[in-house]
Amino acid sequence: MPGNTFGQVFKVTTWGESHGVALGAVIDGCPPRLALSAADINAELARRRPGVQAHASPRREPDQAEILSGVFEGLTTGTPISLIIYNRDVRSRDYDALKDVFRPGHGDFTYQAKYGIRDHRGGGRASARETVARVAAGAVAQKVLDREGIRVLACTVELGGVPARFKDETVIWDNAFFCADPEAVAPMTARVQEVTALKDSLGGVVEVRVRGCPPGLGEPVFDRLDAALAQAVMSVGAVKGVEIGAGFAAARMLGSEHNDPLIPGGFASNQAGGILAGISNGDEIIVRAAVKPISSIGREQQTIDVSGQPRTLTVTGRHDISAIPRIVPVLLAMVRLTLADFLLRQRTNA
Amino acid sequence: MPGNTFGQVFKVTTWGESHGVALGAVIDGCPPRLALSAADINAELARRRPGVQAHASPRREPDQAEILSGVFEGLTTGTPISLIIYNRDVRSRDYDALKDVFRPGHGDFTYQAKYGIRDHRGGGRASARETVARVAAGAVAQKVLDREGIRVLACTVELGGVPARFKDETVIWDNAFFCADPEAVAPMTARVQEVTALKDSLGGVVEVRVRGCPPGLGEPVFDRLDAALAQAVMSVGAVKGVEIGAGFAAARMLGSEHNDPLIPGGFASNQAGGILAGISNGDEIIVRAAVKPISSIGREQQTIDVSGQPRTLTVTGRHDISAIPRIVPVLLAMVRLTLADFLLRQRTNA
Amino acid sequence: MPGNTFGQVFKVTTWGESHGVALGAVIDGCPPRLALSAADINAELARRRPGVQAHASPRREPDQAEILSGVFEGLTTGTPISLIIYNRDVRSRDYDALKDVFRPGHGDFTYQAKYGIRDHRGGGRASARETVARVAAGAVAQKVLDREGIRVLACTVELGGVPARFKDETVIWDNAFFCADPEAVAPMTARVQEVTALKDSLGGVVEVRVRGCPPGLGEPVFDRLDAALAQAVMSVGAVKGVEIGAGFAAARMLGSEHNDPLIPGGFASNQAGGILAGISNGDEIIVRAAVKPISSIGREQQTIDVSGQPRTLTVTGRHDISAIPRIVPVLLAMVRLTLADFLLRQRTNA
Amino acid sequence: MPGNTFGQVFKVTTWGESHGVALGAVIDGCPPRLALSAADINAELARRRPGVQAHASPRREPDQAEILSGVFEGLTTGTPISLIIYNRDVRSRDYDALKDVFRPGHGDFTYQAKYGIRDHRGGGRASARETVARVAAGAVAQKVLDREGIRVLACTVELGGVPARFKDETVIWDNAFFCADPEAVAPMTARVQEVTALKDSLGGVVEVRVRGCPPGLGEPVFDRLDAALAQAVMSVGAVKGVEIGAGFAAARMLGSEHNDPLIPGGFASNQAGGILAGISNGDEIIVRAAVKPISSIGREQQTIDVSGQPRTLTVTGRHDISAIPRIVPVLLAMVRLTLADFLLRQRTNA
Repeated sequence: MPGNTFGQVFKVTTWGESHGVALGAVIDGCPPRLALSAADINAELARRRPGVQAHASPRREPDQAEILSGVFEGLTTGTPISLIIYNRDVRSRDYDALKDVFRPGHGDFTYQAKYGIRDHRGGGRASARETVARVAAGAVAQKVLDREGIRVLACTVELGGVPARFKDETVIWDNAFFCADPEAVAPMTARVQEVTALKDSLGGVVEVRVRGCPPGLGEPVFDRLDAALAQAVMSVGAVKGVEIGAGFAAARMLGSEHNDPLIPGGFASNQAGGILAGISNGDEIIVRAAVKPISSIGREQQTIDVSGQPRTLTVTGRHDISAIPRIVPVLLAMVRLTLADFLLRQRTNA
Repeated sequence: MPGNTFGQVFKVTTWGESHGVALGAVIDGCPPRLALSAADINAELARRRPGVQAHASPRREPDQAEILSGVFEGLTTGTPISLIIYNRDVRSRDYDALKDVFRPGHGDFTYQAKYGIRDHRGGGRASARETVARVAAGAVAQKVLDREGIRVLACTVELGGVPARFKDETVIWDNAFFCADPEAVAPMTARVQEVTALKDSLGGVVEVRVRGCPPGLGEPVFDRLDAALAQAVMSVGAVKGVEIGAGFAAARMLGSEHNDPLIPGGFASNQAGGILAGISNGDEIIVRAAVKPISSIGREQQTIDVSGQPRTLTVTGRHDISAIPRIVPVLLAMVRLTLADFLLRQRTNA
Repeated sequence: MPGNTFGQVFKVTTWGESHGVALGAVIDGCPPRLALSAADINAELARRRPGVQAHASPRREPDQAEILSGVFEGLTTGTPISLIIYNRDVRSRDYDALKDVFRPGHGDFTYQAKYGIRDHRGGGRASARETVARVAAGAVAQKVLDREGIRVLACTVELGGVPARFKDETVIWDNAFFCADPEAVAPMTARVQEVTALKDSLGGVVEVRVRGCPPGLGEPVFDRLDAALAQAVMSVGAVKGVEIGAGFAAARMLGSEHNDPLIPGGFASNQAGGILAGISNGDEIIVRAAVKPISSIGREQQTIDVSGQPRTLTVTGRHDISAIPRIVPVLLAMVRLTLADFLLRQRTNA
Repeated sequence: MPGNTFGQVFKVTTWGESHGVALGAVIDGCPPRLALSAADINAELARRRPGVQAHASPRREPDQAEILSGVFEGLTTGTPISLIIYNRDVRSRDYDALKDVFRPGHGDFTYQAKYGIRDHRGGGRASARETVARVAAGAVAQKVLDREGIRVLACTVELGGVPARFKDETVIWDNAFFCADPEAVAPMTARVQEVTALKDSLGGVVEVRVRGCPPGLGEPVFDRLDAALAQAVMSVGAVKGVEIGAGFAAARMLGSEHNDPLIPGGFASNQAGGILAGISNGDEIIVRAAVKPISSIGREQQTIDVSGQPRTLTVTGRHDISAIPRIVPVLLAMVRLTLADFLLRQRTNA
């Protein structure tokens, strides 16, 4: 059954495989008369481009989105916006060795179990490359948010156990780890080198913050804003946990510590992470995602092949050592898509 | 815009306010010819009943669901199943004092911001009482799971900082905290007494496990099974975090630690929590929810009234000291609803 | 799979069987702060009440809707509105004879084929009684339309071959056939008597008109307003055809006859029936439905029983001789529901 | 709000403008392991190609679909199938004259009213060219139907008042009007010549028949199969009426004439058009669509410009004289899409 569409009003459907012809997104429900160009989208794609960082994937295609429909003379028209990003630099032969074996931590086994067939080349639809379409669509969502002055920020707050503070948003895109904390860069670099030497991989935590969100977004009871954000964030491969505001720490707080006192004009604290009873409260929205270590590692692993026989596997070729930092713009995009959708949904409550 | 429906195939719409006439659920898409009676549902409702535990809410209505449609001679017919639970023992006058003030941690402020009106009696739709309809619907969902031999368990694994192990599932419903660990009961009781004396409240962590789930459930990329579970769990009031398998701990693991080796017949470990690339892998599914301390506390709090003026507020009357354990059967229900839906969705992929 | 929900924003889910405990509707997505009372709904229910007309069904329950949620102090709150109409005067035993036989023209055979089970009492969910919930929900939809000054009219324009003009809307609810043409009443009465004597039944045509609809409603390409109206109208049992504006007559016109010239402030004619390219054009919307003769007739018919053996069947008891006029308020309701939904949908295009 | 998606399980989203870069469709929910090639799709596209018939549009691009995703080694994989058809032979300058004027019968006025902007080139999204994506998607839907032996036929049964019988399905695609009646070709040709001389245009009626459909498809009450077919057919531009089985003629029948007697193995007649109570009954499904005369005519017409001033307009350039026969494969496609969706939906009722 379908599962490749996100949103109810600002509705995005993505398609495409890692080693197919192209990937893309169709956005249906984008309001008309917004200025939009391919350049707006490509600026975002540049942030998730492999090869930007020293430790990143060597597959270096310069992702370029084309707008195939829905924009006329530089403005959206209200009709579906079709975006396409062609695959380049695809070397499918690299993956022939993986045709008959299930890689641990990957979707090989489960795709086979689900569909009885899988495109094994680079993980097919289960590849992280799938997220390029999300980032492209997220750039369009931001146009909707721009009209209301809503900003969305994302950065790494932990990598391989090394913490980083949300300190200076202006430096995020300038460092190799997309941290808002310049002092974290050196210890993170050291941690990466250490694990690279082990031919192993690393996880971390990414934080997304929304500023300028008006109160009132979120549709109780099942489509609460926090529930939608949880789905959005957890739908990104490698994410194994989501928390809002104080999150898991809230489980150990007292009510008097966790309750945010209301004061004229807002709240005295923000343990809630900007969402109360599933509805935005006007304060900063704070979402964190736990990112597992990337599954492709250079160390030998035990697995089975498609006939169920034990095999040992050493993933050759070069891979990212962590989904971080490339996952940062992806999570940013998912939060943008969620907010654009709920912003438009709220209009029908008036 | 609508937000009170959950599921695509096994589709549940809930309605009702804390102090309205009744609450209910309409289930559309339940397969025909399943044996179903009100008794099946009421057995589940008994588990979330206030007043069962010493420390729980004194509002003691014996919730009884009636089946209004969709069942004929004891079998489901494939038409919508309408369930109703009448409110009894409703004392709305208790809430008149709260009419003009926003309680910290509650949805009072955000409902007002969203809709420009709110049913202030007992929190209206934002009350935890809303979940009675989820539990009722979850009992029907379990009928779908029963046919496939799928079992769903839920229990408290932490309360006010006191941990409990998932040790013995047979004792869960026999102790006051819905723990699977009899040894945790005494320290939890002590912690509850301590915080009761402070007129404060407590949070904790609940774990849900699914046994016997076949591989192949989950619809990538946005409707991944883990994403849907995250939405389901986060949509319950008081939940501020969700994790699958190793969850946030995965962020500090190495790939070689987190990857579950495949072995003939399954997996050698289960860091993934039974889900790979958004699709069930046949192993036990493990979901944990962080539950914030309950917002109603007896201590004086700072807040504002509807005109924006500062006020102090002391919530009188008696309230639960924690959403735990009543939230346990609710989270159980949400996982059941999710699985029943995805089980039926998978049929269309054949 | 679910099929009992109508609408995307103003979303109605109905439930209930002819001889069950009750029928009802849950409306999710109704804007807050609309004045709404049970009396508003019951006024509409009175129009589809059996027993109003001489030739109508003798089952005379005085349908009364109760509002179970979503309304507080006389105003909608934005949360789901649950409506219930209890069944009274139910004599299920009358239907025992029909337990094992498939009535021609009814859904007995197809429900059995679809679900492998059916509630045979009075047609179960396939009964025309199902429409009571539609009419109730339509009354709520009208509240949304009222704010914009949109009026929806419906009347019989043909019964058993006897035509009626849309002449005087003020007389519609005052005559036995819900005609806007007093002169048609006598020949229609004669036709009904004629066919009653034959123990046979009659069909006809109903027209619905929408006045004051703003231009711009309808979401191309699949959710065109005319397409949505066609679904809405055809979803009513007994309807076998739908047309917009000139409808089937358009198939024989020339372009120069069918094209409506634009003039300052509107259109010089209205062959289009108020919809161009699937979007309302500001002119009167005109929809017509072909209603088949009612399936229950007193004449002997050939059929089969559940084991596939030939049987003769004479439907005893008393039945309406035509779905007209009771279907008139039902079609009115379906058009109201459609317009309320599209009116709210259009808000997200701004 | 979105409106470019059709179907719940076999879900198609289309995009693209008449004079944009390309048009396309994304199919999400197509079952895996179906053989599919571009050639399968292009064979269907050839049938709606302009320029096939003498009287048809001279814009002669040879439409070719490319499959961009969802197919691996010739088989569908269960992931989204993205289809693209590039526009060629686009001469947008032809349309500059129409930039500021609303053509009667077209969507120019309503698109402007709805979105406040429109792509005026060739009608943009409102162009009949939009249907190329429907036909492409319909070819994929047929693959789902093929597995069950379901065939869908479509042909012209009336053109400009000239009737044709459904007589010989083998000749449909061999004559200029897609009739199943060779004797109708000469009078239709004469009628076309007559109206061509008048610089006017023609409408007609198209019939679609489904053979081999199992009983049980259709989801009451709103998603009845006939309601879904009505939406599907009415969503095609130029269609102003839809009927099932006897359709509007049913309005003048007696119940004893319209009721189809059940006999062992089926029905003795088929007035119902294969659908009872919204569910397929196993008999041939018969749907007819009323097609209005095409709006672009060479005769002078009255209209207004974008500033509301009166204008006269003569549409120059060459256009089809009728939506028939090009609409025939489009309606065929819409019925295929509907049936594939409901076939898969029915699997969840087991």
